[in-house]
Amino acid sequence: MVTNLSVKHSLLTNWISELRNTDVQTDRMRFRRNLERIGEVIAYEISKTLPWEEKDIQTPLGIHSSKVLKEQPVLATILRAGLPLHQGVLNYFDKADNAFISAYRKHRRDGSFEINLEYLSAASLEGRILIICDPMLATGASLAAALQALLSDSGKPSQIHIV
Amino acid sequence: MVTNLSVKHSLLTNWISELRNTDVQTDRMRFRRNLERIGEVIAYEISKTLPWEEKDIQTPLGIHSSKVLKEQPVLATILRAGLPLHQGVLNYFDKADNAFISAYRKHRRDGSFEINLEYLSAASLEGRILIICDPMLATGASLAAALQALLSDSGKPSQIHIV
Amino acid sequence: MVTNLSVKHSLLTNWISELRNTDVQTDRMRFRRNLERIGEVIAYEISKTLPWEEKDIQTPLGIHSSKVLKEQPVLATILRAGLPLHQGVLNYFDKADNAFISAYRKHRRDGSFEINLEYLSAASLEGRILIICDPMLATGASLAAALQALLSDSGKPSQIHIV
Amino acid sequence: MVTNLSVKHSLLTNWISELRNTDVQTDRMRFRRNLERIGEVIAYEISKTLPWEEKDIQTPLGIHSSKVLKEQPVLATILRAGLPLHQGVLNYFDKADNAFISAYRKHRRDGSFEINLEYLSAASLEGRILIICDPMLATGASLAAALQALLSDSGKPSQIHIV
Repeated sequence: MVTNLSVKHSLLTNWISELRNTDVQTDRMRFRRNLERIGEVIAYEISKTLPWEEKDIQTPLGIHSSKVLKEQPVLATILRAGLPLHQGVLNYFDKADNAFISAYRKHRRDGSFEINLEYLSAASLEGRILIICDPMLATGASLAAALQALLSDSGKPSQIHIV
Repeated sequence: MVTNLSVKHSLLTNWISELRNTDVQTDRMRFRRNLERIGEVIAYEISKTLPWEEKDIQTPLGIHSSKVLKEQPVLATILRAGLPLHQGVLNYFDKADNAFISAYRKHRRDGSFEINLEYLSAASLEGRILIICDPMLATGASLAAALQALLSDSGKPSQIHIV
Repeated sequence: MVTNLSVKHSLLTNWISELRNTDVQTDRMRFRRNLERIGEVIAYEISKTLPWEEKDIQTPLGIHSSKVLKEQPVLATILRAGLPLHQGVLNYFDKADNAFISAYRKHRRDGSFEINLEYLSAASLEGRILIICDPMLATGASLAAALQALLSDSGKPSQIHIV
Repeated sequence: MVTNLSVKHSLLTNWISELRNTDVQTDRMRFRRNLERIGEVIAYEISKTLPWEEKDIQTPLGIHSSKVLKEQPVLATILRAGLPLHQGVLNYFDKADNAFISAYRKHRRDGSFEINLEYLSAASLEGRILIICDPMLATGASLAAALQALLSDSGKPSQIHIV
């Protein structure tokens, strides 16, 4: 299921517009902050689709039954472009586990290079909810490679969300 | 139109649950951060209903037509409980104007008191989109008084959103 | 004792320079963020002068004696200009108590006005460390009035820091 | 020159104490926020030693000569433990360039492994001020290896600060 959040107007479309605007791009603080905020609202939108459970909590007015997140997701990011977006998702899922995929160019002597992927994380993904951050999606080839590497290394997630 | 965001499960219900939880309430950083995050997602949800316009922006790949917020809202807060919520709304509407309503108890010699309201802002509200933050809603009496004071002082807004 | 932090060059002087710069002032996000960061480093500098105590804490490697803040300060702010500065100080003293002083103009029918001060806080200041935020210091008259109001209402602090 | 900021008591020692405390470590939001704040005050302390220059800026009250940072540093981080610390330093040096060093274990079939380092950055370090974040300093072997890799790849910095 593909959800295109930029179809409907909201602050998200405003921030994406600022990201693209050459007059605003030069302000690195605002550029990072926009990516972070986009990560935050995407985290919020994803959270609407996640499983929840009833839990009794102690409030000042007595025991109250409350709906809370059933499990914490794993946030995986393709370094290094994904970091501010990852930070935004993490701002909202503050108890999530983290995984990092390092994609780098390995240069050969003749000047050509290949994309190498390294997975930097101890967490198992088996049965977990996986959220992958990759704001630099072009052909999707490196995302596909990263996803394949993650799954072969770390088990089969129950859900995968691509941001 | 009343939108009850806590009906549908999302991170918002999770944060509200933490706000009520006596075990979590004692952590003031998390308490404020939860109010801030609630303000942020409410700002995002409100933004879906605001008027937008097409604007041409210069991108690295040429001129691009983009949907941007048509006008900036005014954020009004009933001090002092509303501050972290206001901060959250302001995190997202970072170009908004601000208005503060100071509600305080004026004590008389016999120990009784009345609620005094003072409006601390230069901004006119005439024709503006007004967002009022008041997380301490009980009977709504002080909110109603604050709203009345705002409107008689500063003009008639085009829209009012109560958070 | 007056500490003029802007004499020695640091990031602080850089941020103050941006606050004054008419080209940068129009970016409200950066303007607030600069006031916040100034509040943070001032909080850090003040913390060097505060009383501390030894406390045993449980670490993964055993019991460790650690120096921790002896008591939490009260942060008082003159509304509403002081809010971003207050937010910065609070970012660092995240367990502090808060007090707000509302200064507003009470207009008379002839167009003249007087400054009214209202103190919005339940916290007693007796024997506490008080940090007052007021970035709009001109003659100091309203600061003096605010301080006087605070002290007569809420007891005598052990230390007063003016930011 | 080694500066041990934890000798003198300040908020920094308080945050380090919380990082070590097994009761507080489980709160990931506070743990990350403490690393971030430590990065912020270290950035501020480093900034006191950096070169500055006089620059005329336009203020609302006329032209004002102001001391500003002479050049922006490059922030290099050893992934992935250094990220929250890096974020903190970046919060303060918001115009800095970034470099990431990815250290990962390359497993052999017999179960042994070696540490591989990959440098993820386009920025040249030649003549730049380099700030390296590595909060997981144990023997310093990986820091030394990372530093060596950086210098052979990307030129000779004018200053190196290790955080």
